[in-house]
Amino acid sequence: MSASIEEFDIIERYFAGKISRSHENILLGPGDDCGMFTLPSDQAICISTDTLVAGTHFPDDCAADIVAHRSMVANLSDLAAMGAKPFAYTLALTLDSKSATHAWLDNFSTTLEALGERYEISLIGGNLAKGNLSLTYTVLGTIDKGCAIKRDGAQAGDDIYVTGSLGNAAAGLKIVQAVNSQKPSAEEFPGLVSSYYYPTPRIALGLALQGIASSAIDISDGFASDLKHICERSVVGARVELDSLPLSEALVSYVGAEQAQVLGLSGGDDYELCFTAARDQAEALNELSLQLKVPMSRVGIIVAMTTRESQVSFHNATEAQVKVSHQGYRHFE
Amino acid sequence: MSASIEEFDIIERYFAGKISRSHENILLGPGDDCGMFTLPSDQAICISTDTLVAGTHFPDDCAADIVAHRSMVANLSDLAAMGAKPFAYTLALTLDSKSATHAWLDNFSTTLEALGERYEISLIGGNLAKGNLSLTYTVLGTIDKGCAIKRDGAQAGDDIYVTGSLGNAAAGLKIVQAVNSQKPSAEEFPGLVSSYYYPTPRIALGLALQGIASSAIDISDGFASDLKHICERSVVGARVELDSLPLSEALVSYVGAEQAQVLGLSGGDDYELCFTAARDQAEALNELSLQLKVPMSRVGIIVAMTTRESQVSFHNATEAQVKVSHQGYRHFE
Repeated sequence: MSASIEEFDIIERYFAGKISRSHENILLGPGDDCGMFTLPSDQAICISTDTLVAGTHFPDDCAADIVAHRSMVANLSDLAAMGAKPFAYTLALTLDSKSATHAWLDNFSTTLEALGERYEISLIGGNLAKGNLSLTYTVLGTIDKGCAIKRDGAQAGDDIYVTGSLGNAAAGLKIVQAVNSQKPSAEEFPGLVSSYYYPTPRIALGLALQGIASSAIDISDGFASDLKHICERSVVGARVELDSLPLSEALVSYVGAEQAQVLGLSGGDDYELCFTAARDQAEALNELSLQLKVPMSRVGIIVAMTTRESQVSFHNATEAQVKVSHQGYRHFE
Repeated sequence: MSASIEEFDIIERYFAGKISRSHENILLGPGDDCGMFTLPSDQAICISTDTLVAGTHFPDDCAADIVAHRSMVANLSDLAAMGAKPFAYTLALTLDSKSATHAWLDNFSTTLEALGERYEISLIGGNLAKGNLSLTYTVLGTIDKGCAIKRDGAQAGDDIYVTGSLGNAAAGLKIVQAVNSQKPSAEEFPGLVSSYYYPTPRIALGLALQGIASSAIDISDGFASDLKHICERSVVGARVELDSLPLSEALVSYVGAEQAQVLGLSGGDDYELCFTAARDQAEALNELSLQLKVPMSRVGIIVAMTTRESQVSFHNATEAQVKVSHQGYRHFE
């Protein structure tokens, strides 16, 4: 740990003034024992927490701006999946000797500042500790009472949608790791690398899906795995049409068609949304997609609950059921 | 990492059902993309986040119930210092191979469950990751609007109080570390060890100090260092009477009078409160102390701001100013 850098200096220089944006409902930002906020009586708060650990959730040598971006988006994505509007966050930062430097912190906090502006979210509290580099965000979003999109609302007959393309981030991670062993694939597939480094939280879409989607989840562990969470909570099954999975040309070109489907089903870190909606919402969704410029693909249908083993089934163009490994990212393996 | 223990099993078995207590304002507990809560219109939320890292904030081989207790109290103590009532918390848990076991998790979650009951606080969200053992809590407390006790309200002439005894936890840590090198001091000074392992958050007192205390902070880094935060925020100075510091007999007996004073001034982890109050609150405070059975000591007085260097001065019985090292726990050394 650099002797010239001290906790309170870090907070003062990189966080307290720089990142805390004012907000009419924030009564007290960082600097006291607690931050403090109020809430209009017609709203509720959505809250989510997520830890990203160097070496597990991002490469050890990842640049500070990428660490800041990916960590923030992973959290904002949870708010998007509820249809909530970002409001405030706390950041508990554990720094190692490489990150407790002015260069790293400047890059990190500048990125957070830009993300704060873009998504209108204010730092309301934080903590600094020494250890292996890791970040725990707790994000708060506001939502009108009764309007949250939960995981338990999917009904038989609902269509299943996903936003964007699936598997790009997982491919991007492969490329990043390949670069580390001197294979120059990053320049060939900048879109895939960018999907991994700089994912986009679907905040505007999440807000617009209130009253339209019957359930939603963000795709962080992998599409098949995350869809299974919706099915479990909603006590329904899902029938996925494999040929409808949105797989990018870049993904297919990089890993081939077969592996692209595997990554589309099981690759983590896309931070796209998977949601369900009644069939009669199709036109409204089409308009939303055009208006917000967010690609959406209908990838299957919710069915009545069958057995737990076949809760999510996968089908090809001839309607035949296909056995696929749909295991998403596992946190403990 | 034990192959037989998996993320969702851990959440289901040790957290989701066991720890989430119901609360009229919690609309959604763990298990969706976000937890969700509402807030009565006459209240505000106090929020604080804190990370504890194995090897830095508690010994590597610390038992799970001690880890759970100390981590929770460190966070509750921040709510106490604002005068807030504990409401809900998120827990981001990063587990290593020793802690990702049924025995550890059972002990840990049973302790959290008991603390949840005792302090009426509900788990509203969480995260599990793999890495070096660390815990990040984000705690939420409710407070009537306008009633929070902040750090910036101390005024010249206010008395300075501390609760309990100072330095016990720091001495307890010394003993714990001594035990690790086979010195059997733990049995001789169970009170000191207990102060370190099982601190008590001053929740009831914090609530009662609303309208009485002009400022407050919890003593986590060390009394002198934490008092300095009050002075900085309030733009005042402080004059501490060294002979008034509440030092326990056990502490003096263990480390001697001189070192006891050093630990009383600079020892961390006590989680007592340091607060200021106008002189005419002395009687009310005396009654509170008796009623809540919380010892309180008047240890000095707030004075007008002098220079930054002498913002907190220390005086002995003859009123002479004494130069003391009052550096508290530093997170980056």
